[in-house]
Amino acid sequence: MRFLHTADWHIGKKLHGYDLLEEQVDAFQQILAIAKNEEVDAIVVAGDLYDRSVPSVEAIEVFNQMIVEMNLQEKFPVLAISGNHDSSTRLETGGPWFVQSDFHLNTRLDQAFQPVEMGNTQFFLLPYFEPISARLFFDNEEIRTIEQAMQEVIKKMKEQFKPDMAHVLVSHFFVAGSEKSDSETKLMVGGLDTVPLSLLESFDYVALGHLHGKNALQAENARYSGSPLKFSLSEMNQKKGVWIVDTQPSETTFEFKELTPLRDVKQIEGGFKELTSQTFYDSINRENYLHIQLTDRAVIPNMMNQLRKIYPRVIGVERLFGREERQKQTETKKEVKTLAPVELVDQFFSEVTGESLTQQQQRWIEENLGAIHQAERGK
Amino acid sequence: MRFLHTADWHIGKKLHGYDLLEEQVDAFQQILAIAKNEEVDAIVVAGDLYDRSVPSVEAIEVFNQMIVEMNLQEKFPVLAISGNHDSSTRLETGGPWFVQSDFHLNTRLDQAFQPVEMGNTQFFLLPYFEPISARLFFDNEEIRTIEQAMQEVIKKMKEQFKPDMAHVLVSHFFVAGSEKSDSETKLMVGGLDTVPLSLLESFDYVALGHLHGKNALQAENARYSGSPLKFSLSEMNQKKGVWIVDTQPSETTFEFKELTPLRDVKQIEGGFKELTSQTFYDSINRENYLHIQLTDRAVIPNMMNQLRKIYPRVIGVERLFGREERQKQTETKKEVKTLAPVELVDQFFSEVTGESLTQQQQRWIEENLGAIHQAERGK
Repeated sequence: MRFLHTADWHIGKKLHGYDLLEEQVDAFQQILAIAKNEEVDAIVVAGDLYDRSVPSVEAIEVFNQMIVEMNLQEKFPVLAISGNHDSSTRLETGGPWFVQSDFHLNTRLDQAFQPVEMGNTQFFLLPYFEPISARLFFDNEEIRTIEQAMQEVIKKMKEQFKPDMAHVLVSHFFVAGSEKSDSETKLMVGGLDTVPLSLLESFDYVALGHLHGKNALQAENARYSGSPLKFSLSEMNQKKGVWIVDTQPSETTFEFKELTPLRDVKQIEGGFKELTSQTFYDSINRENYLHIQLTDRAVIPNMMNQLRKIYPRVIGVERLFGREERQKQTETKKEVKTLAPVELVDQFFSEVTGESLTQQQQRWIEENLGAIHQAERGK
Repeated sequence: MRFLHTADWHIGKKLHGYDLLEEQVDAFQQILAIAKNEEVDAIVVAGDLYDRSVPSVEAIEVFNQMIVEMNLQEKFPVLAISGNHDSSTRLETGGPWFVQSDFHLNTRLDQAFQPVEMGNTQFFLLPYFEPISARLFFDNEEIRTIEQAMQEVIKKMKEQFKPDMAHVLVSHFFVAGSEKSDSETKLMVGGLDTVPLSLLESFDYVALGHLHGKNALQAENARYSGSPLKFSLSEMNQKKGVWIVDTQPSETTFEFKELTPLRDVKQIEGGFKELTSQTFYDSINRENYLHIQLTDRAVIPNMMNQLRKIYPRVIGVERLFGREERQKQTETKKEVKTLAPVELVDQFFSEVTGESLTQQQQRWIEENLGAIHQAERGK
């Protein structure tokens, strides 16, 4: 059995206000091309199909088209589960009809115990669930954490294990020891939402969703596929793609296939003059989502508008030396009353521009402050 | 070809804040029972499956269960369209899989021109649409109204007519000359949303949705099924049900089958004392949705709470003689300045209680007003 493992599509997600649907369709087309090239027997999607429990109409249109193409047109069997971002009930619509064409979309805990058998493999499709669901399903008041729930879940799954088949778990949670990036929603704090890797050892492969980096977990038999796209700056250096998994009689192997983003998430650094010079911006892909680190200290009037004219997808501007200045500012506030007028102006000028007054400027200020002072007295 | 015609389910609709899901499931079960008893070949649902474009999770759960039962379990072919209350895109999910089991759910105008053929009949499933959709679809800037759009739509449908078959149109709009009740949303004003009956004469039967009363339109070849439940007080006296339609070679016949509401919408009238007496309330079905007409004129402290203790589903309380009093009030306001103090109190008392002051009460007021007046002077 050879399958493609992907997850965390988050259809409808926006990146700092930018709609990603075009990128999502492009990544989907690449996934489909890989599935065809690799001649997989099925496509596994491990949760978070949508980004929100109530997706927009545009997101639904895109998703509907994707599943039609994948399952009805290209005839791939699909094994999918709902993630924490999906509304299980909303996603459930159509499910009982989907199975007629081998599109298995599990959204309820009770569905996880009826494995889907394909080739030499039993797939257990376990949707994202809260401990309360397991408490009710197992009628066990003791279950308070996902770890406790998973002990019962896996025990029950193993009752269905056929010894001559490979066993694959498709699930969507945080495996203890994994590394998070910025774009995953925190579910709970205090480790209540984590599952120890040791609990998963009975499976030949665990196709995970939830974390967006493929390297979030290094294990012999478990992998996050990661999201098909970079959803935050912290994922800037991640390689995005899918796993091609082979469950052979002797062992299970997996190989990563990279996706090429339609528009990448990148960071550029430099002074405002440099970044807005044609020599510079002609040398990079301006269509990317860009986080800009500015080295300037001076005030730049109309900065964002100027940058956006050149770079249409700015996802953030950072002043590299801004923080230092802000610290200084806090310090000065205490001293303000003890400073001479010209010193105050000097400090204000350097906070705003990052530069000091020239001698000429200082002299001009002294003269004019003096004149104002006299005029006030003369009243 | 024998089919059941229903429409305007409005799953998730509330009646004055009361959830109707239980009533909706009950009505659905009756519809299914009729379909079985009458041995129909298909069930037609002419739009407004949901009450809102974004239905609640509870409404989706109920609807999902209904369509599974109707189509997958009871194996009825289903011919359905989206109405103006449905989000066509949201409802579309699963559609391409539904057809595998003869569940045809059209949500887009372009789908209407591929008739579904069953037995001796061609069904044209025309979802609710706005003139703009027809303008784009026909690439015709002249189309501004539904009537203009329908001329083109029907012309195009007739190209598909097979002469030896019966032709049924399933649609969701306001046919000119129909009578509205209170629970239909007004779409537009000025008649832009109406279709003349004459346009529909090519069809053997037009299964309409949109208006909630089965008698809204009296025509030889067209019927509203009406909603399965009463959705407003104005529908109090309507009979709710479904049509059983036979498209025979010679002629098309239809017969109405009534539904019995789990809880009815009723109006009761009487004095507060009577309505809260056990003799009275034991004689009626207190579980119904009740609009109460009170004949009292007096103030009744804590009235709603007292009524709701006896009648759990009060959808409105009307003071039958309230309006008269309010008119009087407006008249008095002009005279207030010219009235003696005791007259003012008398008027206020009668406005609030509906009764006049007794002689003893008048005397008491005069004495005390006098005392207050003297105390004021003595200050």
